[in-house]
Amino acid sequence: MAKRTSKGNVQRESILDAASSLFVERGFPGTSMYDIADALGVTRTAVYYYFPNKEAILAALTEVVTWVAGQLAGQLAERKGLDPVDALRHLVVQHAKLIVSHPVQFRVVERNENHLSPKRREAAAKWRRAVLDHFTDVIKRGIGSGQFRLVDARVAALAIIGMCNWTAWWYKPTGRRSQDEICALLAELAVNGLRQEGARPPRTEMGESLRLLRKELAYLEQRIQDEPA
Amino acid sequence: MAKRTSKGNVQRESILDAASSLFVERGFPGTSMYDIADALGVTRTAVYYYFPNKEAILAALTEVVTWVAGQLAGQLAERKGLDPVDALRHLVVQHAKLIVSHPVQFRVVERNENHLSPKRREAAAKWRRAVLDHFTDVIKRGIGSGQFRLVDARVAALAIIGMCNWTAWWYKPTGRRSQDEICALLAELAVNGLRQEGARPPRTEMGESLRLLRKELAYLEQRIQDEPA
Repeated sequence: MAKRTSKGNVQRESILDAASSLFVERGFPGTSMYDIADALGVTRTAVYYYFPNKEAILAALTEVVTWVAGQLAGQLAERKGLDPVDALRHLVVQHAKLIVSHPVQFRVVERNENHLSPKRREAAAKWRRAVLDHFTDVIKRGIGSGQFRLVDARVAALAIIGMCNWTAWWYKPTGRRSQDEICALLAELAVNGLRQEGARPPRTEMGESLRLLRKELAYLEQRIQDEPA
Repeated sequence: MAKRTSKGNVQRESILDAASSLFVERGFPGTSMYDIADALGVTRTAVYYYFPNKEAILAALTEVVTWVAGQLAGQLAERKGLDPVDALRHLVVQHAKLIVSHPVQFRVVERNENHLSPKRREAAAKWRRAVLDHFTDVIKRGIGSGQFRLVDARVAALAIIGMCNWTAWWYKPTGRRSQDEICALLAELAVNGLRQEGARPPRTEMGESLRLLRKELAYLEQRIQDEPA
């Protein structure tokens, strides 16, 4: 996420962060606009300046973790020429990055969607479906090109998205791995999990094939030497 | 999970199921013992016969998705001789199976842990750590044996557990894939995601190596034929 610089946006973000923490601690029904203002050390008027009510705060949080996720996945899907392996790697990195940089917000949204208006709930469901569709399409393309194994693309997409989403329950900024390291590991797990055994990049070099031949010959040679005389 | 047959256990399970659905719909604070009895079409006394209060119901639900998960993982860990690849496959299948067969319960527990007593919360945390430790150990063993890639075993374990846990948010009994199919796919994603490229099973057959050689030769042959004359 791009850093926002204007003072208004910084204050708006502070309200969203403070509200997220309170919603997780006390639940959405148990948190008031006064509590949020109190946690920030500002007046209620200052909070009302940005959000007319608690539901608007929850809606803004939902927007971050659903609308933004949908937008990000959509932008990548537009890059049609992208190799499916690279596309999946990018999709995982950017989705995971969104979650690990908003873990509390993500959990708040997951828990409190029933407090959103039906219209906003439907919008959130729509953006989630868009993310799932983009992941599914990329996996289908990879199966089509022979780079990914023949699996149920939708179930695989749900599994991979789940791996990203669950980071909201375990990622700690104080942990020994950075956000980037975690996202890269998740992407490699996803890509390798699907990759066809022995699959080559689309434009395979014959040199790569020769390398494999040499490797297997060396292995056989070793095994023959290891044989008891 | 083994099917329970005695009448008491069936009624106890019905109470847990009905309570889970209500806790998800109305929240834990918004659900009373009366609501649970009402949803089942029984008297409050019938519910109180099995559980002294709502917190005991939540504790029983927590036990299913944390204590049982810990026990299952622990039983597998005791089978020391098990190959790390097979062990990870089993761990994923049984953990995923537990979640897809209790999705609502799992979500209830995730959302309401703050309503448990500190002692029970600590017990749940302990069982979750046990599951994480078992997954981490198996991955470490696989790295040690050269079957898995060199990754942060703990982060990889969290990613794989997350993939299983998130099924609670998307698995539908009416979906086109069975629980077993989904669990098998998750296990293959996890195992392949970690597997060392070109890694062979511990007792490699030379026949497998010859198969690879023949495959590469066929590929080179094909490429030479494809070359423009």
